[in-house]
Amino acid sequence: MNAQSCLAELRRIRDVVFATVDADGKPRARIIDIMLAEPSRLIFCTARGKRFYQELTARPEVAVTGMNDRWQSIRLTGRAARLSEAEQRAWIDRIFEANPAMNDVHPGDARYILEAFAIDRGELEFFDLGRSPIVRESFAFGGCVSEIRGFKIVDGCIGCDTCAGLCPQQAIDAGTPYAIRQANCLHCGLCFENCPVDAIIRREAV
Amino acid sequence: MNAQSCLAELRRIRDVVFATVDADGKPRARIIDIMLAEPSRLIFCTARGKRFYQELTARPEVAVTGMNDRWQSIRLTGRAARLSEAEQRAWIDRIFEANPAMNDVHPGDARYILEAFAIDRGELEFFDLGRSPIVRESFAFGGCVSEIRGFKIVDGCIGCDTCAGLCPQQAIDAGTPYAIRQANCLHCGLCFENCPVDAIIRREAV
Repeated sequence: MNAQSCLAELRRIRDVVFATVDADGKPRARIIDIMLAEPSRLIFCTARGKRFYQELTARPEVAVTGMNDRWQSIRLTGRAARLSEAEQRAWIDRIFEANPAMNDVHPGDARYILEAFAIDRGELEFFDLGRSPIVRESFAFGGCVSEIRGFKIVDGCIGCDTCAGLCPQQAIDAGTPYAIRQANCLHCGLCFENCPVDAIIRREAV
Repeated sequence: MNAQSCLAELRRIRDVVFATVDADGKPRARIIDIMLAEPSRLIFCTARGKRFYQELTARPEVAVTGMNDRWQSIRLTGRAARLSEAEQRAWIDRIFEANPAMNDVHPGDARYILEAFAIDRGELEFFDLGRSPIVRESFAFGGCVSEIRGFKIVDGCIGCDTCAGLCPQQAIDAGTPYAIRQANCLHCGLCFENCPVDAIIRREAV
């Protein structure tokens, strides 16, 4: 996987969830279709009358999540920007051409109450719960950098093997120090809680 | 539909998206399983090491969204509360009994890094995009009241029929004043934008 294939997979899943933060600071979410995927951006649309439109206009941060039928999920956090006024009608026409079922909901000129937005920067996480051990990978696009999460084992490790024995995904390898295979880590925290010498720390704390 | 059947349907969909707000005020979302549905609450769990756990502890508001294979979606906004310390292990055992595939991810005692939460109050919206016109219904549970959204036509209506002619779902009936069938309204705003006498207003503004 890479950022481009994650974006393409969100388009294949198509009906994904878009989360925003409302004026009261509370989370809001709804099903939205990914209408077009380009190599480094996603295009979607919504109607000017909707709360979602108002929320996007006030706070452009979105979290987009979808899962396919193989238990693989993609999580995107990024920013949504309204496409330029001059190009709005052309974008809506392109969206309807690529997604003809949209005509059932917005027949004829009713399509122009919709406005097109792009997500052209963000972070992505691919998470495959259908494999054992699980697999996760992080990517970024549009100049963003992936945030570091999870746990790591540092030099204080005494090699007691407690963490490796507890890990539900058997994702910890012996060594000096022991090491967590980040691609297979659930981020559950079981090793972190049980290290007798506190040699397991949150990665983002470093 | 009613609140109870919406909660039961979220359990049937099972893999739904939970949105939260992080410490920076940004939206975060991930796939979470609904583990148990009771008549007026949902039970889920997450691991103590996860960001999601930290976010829930800091800000309990969640937005939960799922869609079934008939294009019907359920949106819940509510609050998640950690179940009591004394009952945690019993809840995790009950969750694993009802969802045996959980053992593949958290075998043996690794299950106890998970903690159980309940959503016992919130608002619900059922939205059926598989019917024409679309159908939406709102409910609440645990003592919450459904928020009023969308648009309404008020006394200034001159009966010009503009709104009814434009509505993409044909959800506006003639009368004095004209009336929007709320159960069939997309909330797209096309009538609102085009009423020549500004007799269409946002419902929550009243």
